[in-house]
Amino acid sequence: MKDTVARAAEGPRVGDAGQLALSSDFSYPPIERTGASFEPAAMQRFLDGEHRAVRELVKEVITQPEFRYFESPDHHAFRKQVLAWTKRLADAGIGRVFMPKYVGGEDDPAKFLAAGETLGFHDLSLMIKFGVQFGLFAGSIQRLGTEPHHRKYLADAASCQLMGCFAMTEIGHGSNVQALETTAAYDPTHEQFIIHSPTFSAGKAYIGNAANDARLAVVFAQLEIAGEKQGVHAFLVPIRDESDRTLPGIAIEDDGYKMGLNGVDNGRIWFDHVRVPRTALLNRFADVDSAGKYQSQIRSPGARFFTMISTLVGGRIAIAASGNSATKSALTIAIRYAARRRQFGPGKPTGKETLLLDYPAIQRRFMPLLANAYAIDFALKHLVALSTKISDGASRTIDTLAAGLKAWSSWNTTRTIQVGRESCGGEGYIAANRFAALKADTDVFATFEGDNTVLMQLVAKNLLTDLKDHLKDMHPVQLTGFMLNQKMTGFTRTMPLFTLNTSRYHLLNANVQLAYFKYRESGLLFQVGGAFRRLTKDREMDAYTAFTRLQPELLELADAYVEREILERFIAVVENAPDRTLHTPLRRLRDLFALYHLELHKSWYLENSVMSGFKAKAISRLVTGLCAEVRSDAVALVDAFGIPDSCLAAPIAL
Amino acid sequence: MKDTVARAAEGPRVGDAGQLALSSDFSYPPIERTGASFEPAAMQRFLDGEHRAVRELVKEVITQPEFRYFESPDHHAFRKQVLAWTKRLADAGIGRVFMPKYVGGEDDPAKFLAAGETLGFHDLSLMIKFGVQFGLFAGSIQRLGTEPHHRKYLADAASCQLMGCFAMTEIGHGSNVQALETTAAYDPTHEQFIIHSPTFSAGKAYIGNAANDARLAVVFAQLEIAGEKQGVHAFLVPIRDESDRTLPGIAIEDDGYKMGLNGVDNGRIWFDHVRVPRTALLNRFADVDSAGKYQSQIRSPGARFFTMISTLVGGRIAIAASGNSATKSALTIAIRYAARRRQFGPGKPTGKETLLLDYPAIQRRFMPLLANAYAIDFALKHLVALSTKISDGASRTIDTLAAGLKAWSSWNTTRTIQVGRESCGGEGYIAANRFAALKADTDVFATFEGDNTVLMQLVAKNLLTDLKDHLKDMHPVQLTGFMLNQKMTGFTRTMPLFTLNTSRYHLLNANVQLAYFKYRESGLLFQVGGAFRRLTKDREMDAYTAFTRLQPELLELADAYVEREILERFIAVVENAPDRTLHTPLRRLRDLFALYHLELHKSWYLENSVMSGFKAKAISRLVTGLCAEVRSDAVALVDAFGIPDSCLAAPIAL
Repeated sequence: MKDTVARAAEGPRVGDAGQLALSSDFSYPPIERTGASFEPAAMQRFLDGEHRAVRELVKEVITQPEFRYFESPDHHAFRKQVLAWTKRLADAGIGRVFMPKYVGGEDDPAKFLAAGETLGFHDLSLMIKFGVQFGLFAGSIQRLGTEPHHRKYLADAASCQLMGCFAMTEIGHGSNVQALETTAAYDPTHEQFIIHSPTFSAGKAYIGNAANDARLAVVFAQLEIAGEKQGVHAFLVPIRDESDRTLPGIAIEDDGYKMGLNGVDNGRIWFDHVRVPRTALLNRFADVDSAGKYQSQIRSPGARFFTMISTLVGGRIAIAASGNSATKSALTIAIRYAARRRQFGPGKPTGKETLLLDYPAIQRRFMPLLANAYAIDFALKHLVALSTKISDGASRTIDTLAAGLKAWSSWNTTRTIQVGRESCGGEGYIAANRFAALKADTDVFATFEGDNTVLMQLVAKNLLTDLKDHLKDMHPVQLTGFMLNQKMTGFTRTMPLFTLNTSRYHLLNANVQLAYFKYRESGLLFQVGGAFRRLTKDREMDAYTAFTRLQPELLELADAYVEREILERFIAVVENAPDRTLHTPLRRLRDLFALYHLELHKSWYLENSVMSGFKAKAISRLVTGLCAEVRSDAVALVDAFGIPDSCLAAPIAL
Repeated sequence: MKDTVARAAEGPRVGDAGQLALSSDFSYPPIERTGASFEPAAMQRFLDGEHRAVRELVKEVITQPEFRYFESPDHHAFRKQVLAWTKRLADAGIGRVFMPKYVGGEDDPAKFLAAGETLGFHDLSLMIKFGVQFGLFAGSIQRLGTEPHHRKYLADAASCQLMGCFAMTEIGHGSNVQALETTAAYDPTHEQFIIHSPTFSAGKAYIGNAANDARLAVVFAQLEIAGEKQGVHAFLVPIRDESDRTLPGIAIEDDGYKMGLNGVDNGRIWFDHVRVPRTALLNRFADVDSAGKYQSQIRSPGARFFTMISTLVGGRIAIAASGNSATKSALTIAIRYAARRRQFGPGKPTGKETLLLDYPAIQRRFMPLLANAYAIDFALKHLVALSTKISDGASRTIDTLAAGLKAWSSWNTTRTIQVGRESCGGEGYIAANRFAALKADTDVFATFEGDNTVLMQLVAKNLLTDLKDHLKDMHPVQLTGFMLNQKMTGFTRTMPLFTLNTSRYHLLNANVQLAYFKYRESGLLFQVGGAFRRLTKDREMDAYTAFTRLQPELLELADAYVEREILERFIAVVENAPDRTLHTPLRRLRDLFALYHLELHKSWYLENSVMSGFKAKAISRLVTGLCAEVRSDAVALVDAFGIPDSCLAAPIAL
């Protein structure tokens, strides 16, 4: 063996490998940026919108040298780094912008969400730590607590003097919050609540900040007064002392290494008859007086429950938005690489190979995902505007939209990063090019802050409830008109041969696109509603069993609803874009969004005879054509996301 | 702040958290295993097939205590561990089973592939290291070299005395192997080849074993004799000496941290006029005599090229098979968890919540993927049987099937692991439950050993070439008959109302299922073939440009071909299964595989008017029903994969 290796290596050598250029000297050919129809800076201004200043502030912080990505595989050191970064954001005042002015805040939750969205361009552990500390922990004190709680805790939470956690989920109760086992029994003698985990499965699970940093926990528990259950309420429970020692009665277990987000210290918490004062109840929507009398201005236990967990709405928006930021990072890296990498060609050995971005298969992969990223951006801005208008109580409209967009967009994030990784081949697999972290960190977005499948069922159930509310006061004549309108929309009935028209003019008409989306949504709504009635009324099934039976249909209905919401918003954006130079690229993206999803769901339209086979084929051809058109803007469209180079970091994209 | 935490913690405590059961004492409720229609052991025997002994041998090795999964995040230490594991496999004699008997082997490549497939149940870094060392490095010496090479190197390679690498891919030339830049110029004076990387992008890229362990490289380079190019050939080039120092003229760069497979030391290699003796050419299919005369029994440069890279076929089969093993691990973990985890229920607070596996949405997610895993298993066994029959040269049939199955099944692996992760919620995100590693390690399967998208285009082009070969000798009358047969198959023309029949009897008929699959494949084949002819003949486009234009259609054609191949195999397996107790579960899986894919592609059938909307809806209902039927066998079907507990390792699955 030794001989072999040594002998074969013989012979004169011309040079030494030291003469070869190594990668430090090397860069890929320049990214090809010709042919865009607009200025990326103009598009970025449009995307940044009214919160440009805070986005710039966040970017200024996260592009500082100490925000270089952490490279050690030691997750304990990584957690410390992320904690330090979080404190830097707090120092810059970003943690308090949503808080009331009387604790030094700006009372501007939309601005806070814009900050979180921008943070999504950096390491996602930082975004999640930021979200846990400010959004969930401080956010629930603000939302569920009253002024005394605010004055006592919020400023310290905003400055990271007081680190906290949001202890809702339990080991045995991931999605089913109403079934939480942790109890908070009121002891009138001492005017205390006794927080207790009766079983192992009652342990709070996957709690961010729990393993290391949190001193105070917002604990969701079943309130019991004199043996009577009052439902889930939130309590402030100290879990560590000022020296970070776990307090008596508290058991904490580190979740250890995870698929991603290893800069966040997740853990499990159990409580063994831990006593907290009566004032530990976050008492904005319900209170217990010293004698143990329960009071709430919200009479329905169901409504009260949804109000108590409404902190999750902001969290869901933040997850969707920062997930979409990760999507944008992946698209930027992959599309820039595809705009400089060449492979295969017309076969002349001396000729240039073809740019990846010029391949129809690559265009077909990326352009619809680029349209999705823009579409989600606009839909989320609309949702933020809606949600910040509602200061009190819960809104089913907003809950539904937030749940739906969170689920739809986090799945889109997973899919986009996957496509980006694969399209970059081996380069995509090298950690330095960021897909590894983007993928692993965002993977959990599909299941935390509400499992996507559960959320989509919630969406569908809300739609059915809306429909029932809507129908119950109608006269039969109104009802018929309503049904017809829903089914085909007034618009389509005025167009002859709607199902057959394959003209470009027709297919690029926003009203036509929207009519199809509405038709699918309402068609599924009536179909599921009818099936539900048959199961519950005719076959006397209970509602739970009937909904379970209809799960696949509920998921499809929710999908149709979200896509229609997104398209409506996209149409409004194109109509109202103030900068006319952006009209053409935005309109193309909207057309691609609309037609790509018509293509995706064409079997439904074909099955239901509202689209001919010829029309379906025409739509597919048009999608291919639109992908080629958007391709000429593709690099400008990702440049317009405005992601700092130090955040992108991937050598293949710079 | 300090006051707050301290004060709120006051009050008497009933107990200490030490009294609480912690997770070490905890286990989930038992996995519910009732209701299966067969014995898992019988199914496992059937799946293990003729190579049961080597599967058991591999399992015996990988379940030894020292094969416990490596938990340190230090990838340098992890590489050492994986090297040690690889040597243990070598010690057990597993590395040499495919080698010729005259070097101590068993001349049994099928047995070797079964070993690799079983290894896929363990850490995938080990499988890849094993594949690099034995399959690619030693395999290419065996396949492309001659007896002197075999005698000199193979025994040492099999024992890991000689570690080596397979240096084909280059930085600038991932998929386009014909465009490799590395040169091997013959110097008749010294009777040597001069191996050289003329540019940075000529560096060999993502080469497993290169960063640390390899001493000898099989280098693919453009052979040049007296300035004349002879195409890509393979050369043995020493890269490290016996003390593991890099040899003069060689530059190696570590690829560093990757998304996964961090137990494998990938790196880049450049050569600066490195001289090797004339005997370093692996000369089975072409040789250069001392005077510099080039000789090859394969006259066509194209055919020669495909023979030279045919080592990849075995690699592709191994990737597909070990990827399917990872798929099986993910399914086992996720389905077992779903068979013990309950969430939500009929609403009675005292009643049991519903088992995840009893939700239609979960059944709809998992059961088709379970059918896919079985289907791929059978298709790969068939491919192995075919490929081991061919000892010499290349076979287009086998190349096509290997490329197609590798792409189709590696995408299926990625999708299945993703669904498994999401279905386990937070538990799926905890590294201990294995989805993190399964996902990250197999992600690259879609792009190495041939990028899936490139492979699928290769498949489609081969199908078009086959069609052309088939048609060219036909008379017009024969041609018409052939076209009709392909289009609708003789079988369907005998069935009236084929497109409308929605009966269960009809839909569960294997001939009906296959007729639909064939119809899609041949329909797409003729459609793409026609389009190609129009572009090249009528519009005088060159073949490259025409194929590029048709990329999306080529990918769909390849997909249809692979699925038809898989279904044909599945039908044969059901017909021939010797153990009749397995007939029902296998048949159900086959029906689900067939109907699920009919549903998936129903828009194509609807567009092309070979399936009515009513029939499409009936198929969807039947898929839902089949999912519920397969559900009762689900746990037994994953138990039958026979994955050792220590390999599964996930606490939620044990």
